[in-house]
Amino acid sequence: MLIFRGTPLYLAKITITLRKSILDPQGKAIHHALESLQMNSVQEVRIGKHIEMKIDAPNKEEAVLVTETACKKLLANPVMEDYTFSVEKISEGFGI
Amino acid sequence: MLIFRGTPLYLAKITITLRKSILDPQGKAIHHALESLQMNSVQEVRIGKHIEMKIDAPNKEEAVLVTETACKKLLANPVMEDYTFSVEKISEGFGI
Repeated sequence: MLIFRGTPLYLAKITITLRKSILDPQGKAIHHALESLQMNSVQEVRIGKHIEMKIDAPNKEEAVLVTETACKKLLANPVMEDYTFSVEKISEGFGI
Repeated sequence: MLIFRGTPLYLAKITITLRKSILDPQGKAIHHALESLQMNSVQEVRIGKHIEMKIDAPNKEEAVLVTETACKKLLANPVMEDYTFSVEKISEGFGI
């Protein structure tokens, strides 16, 4: 079957991290586990989320806008978390 | 208090993602929630982990080795997950 895709496809890679002032018990637990494995050179561990979204958009600006909106409205908690993201085109708008 | 740090400090940023063949129910749930918010241009969502580690190491090769070992031994499940990482120097080895 030929799927005709009218618009390019973008891949957004989002990283959500806890703010520096927020304690990270999950990171502390991993740090402790690493110490149990004799990996004592590790000083601090912090855990965040990595989210990949495929977005249909006519141009990169539109894909960035969708990603920004998704982060603000749903993915990140603005009180406790910071987010960064990158957007790249992964396919052109033609039949695949 | 002056803390004398003998070796440079490196920051490793690790991204752990589920392999393509593994279903991602958490990603599906977020995709569904985005659709409820009328963000229909998002085609697929996949969730992974982002881990930041600060590592005391005499050089970058050593810091990379520690990160690689931590990923293999503890952080990633080699059957279901892939990992990528970058390592950068964030401070020289002098008193801070």
